[in-house]
Amino acid sequence: MFLTLKNNSEFLLSAERMQSKESSFNEEESFPVRKLEISDKRKGFIELLQQLTVCDSVSDKEFEGRFQELSLYSDEHLVCVIEDNCSGKIVATGSVFIEKKFIRNCGKVGHIEDVVVDSNARGMQLGKKIIAFLSDHARSMGCYKVILDCSTDNKVFYEKCGFKQKEIQMVKYFT
Amino acid sequence: MFLTLKNNSEFLLSAERMQSKESSFNEEESFPVRKLEISDKRKGFIELLQQLTVCDSVSDKEFEGRFQELSLYSDEHLVCVIEDNCSGKIVATGSVFIEKKFIRNCGKVGHIEDVVVDSNARGMQLGKKIIAFLSDHARSMGCYKVILDCSTDNKVFYEKCGFKQKEIQMVKYFT
Repeated sequence: MFLTLKNNSEFLLSAERMQSKESSFNEEESFPVRKLEISDKRKGFIELLQQLTVCDSVSDKEFEGRFQELSLYSDEHLVCVIEDNCSGKIVATGSVFIEKKFIRNCGKVGHIEDVVVDSNARGMQLGKKIIAFLSDHARSMGCYKVILDCSTDNKVFYEKCGFKQKEIQMVKYFT
Repeated sequence: MFLTLKNNSEFLLSAERMQSKESSFNEEESFPVRKLEISDKRKGFIELLQQLTVCDSVSDKEFEGRFQELSLYSDEHLVCVIEDNCSGKIVATGSVFIEKKFIRNCGKVGHIEDVVVDSNARGMQLGKKIIAFLSDHARSMGCYKVILDCSTDNKVFYEKCGFKQKEIQMVKYFT
């Protein structure tokens, strides 16, 4: 017997469901990670990013323009998403871009950015799936490491994803 | 009277010289910041990076290949250097690449990486010049902020450059 998922956050977040082997199998089917598609704007992609930080409404033209710009980088800048196949909504996203260096024998580094999971879809390990997908991509691109910046509140989550704290992030705002 | 600079680290590092208005004027002439050039490999660019981290010898072919790859990004990935015009050696470097996002209304962020000043050329504010050059570039490219990761030991230096600590850096090594 497989559970049929509905777009019901209370149901999705139930501990029983999370621990069920049957539901895990179904989760894989219902929450696959894939690359961002241009049609994802109407599936709530921008609204999801608004849960992360400042992100005013983006017009279709602006979105498509940025989407096309990023497409030029091909696999060197990947934005991935998880779509809830039941609701048709984007419920998780993250990105990674590949930096080419001279150090480490002309090595490459993957930079993970803008990871967010819909507040109604937390507790289903979707964040871990996003991080694993982005890390695997960086590794497949020949990176010797993958890095990201996060708040101290999220440190434990990333440790569970196999990361370790190394340095501190410094920032200078222009606007 | 202007001091004539020689490739003598003790002389370069002397407090008198650093505080001299005359030498400051001369420093501007002798230590301009410019973009990396393909000829900089034979001016000690790789040896300078070796002071930063693991960077085994890079063949001319590897260097030229990476240089050409980075050239394709044009102003979106800038490596700058300071050449000591007296010695003909590269004594400082740093890089910045521009990340295009969907957040912040399809904003851009400058990522500063691989900043190093020759151990024999410290105390001449060359690091500050590199950071100012890279920050100005990011701002001119339309970035709303510029970020970097550093050790806690270097926090004060970056604060003097106008940066503030924000988050922590997490890393996962593949090799």
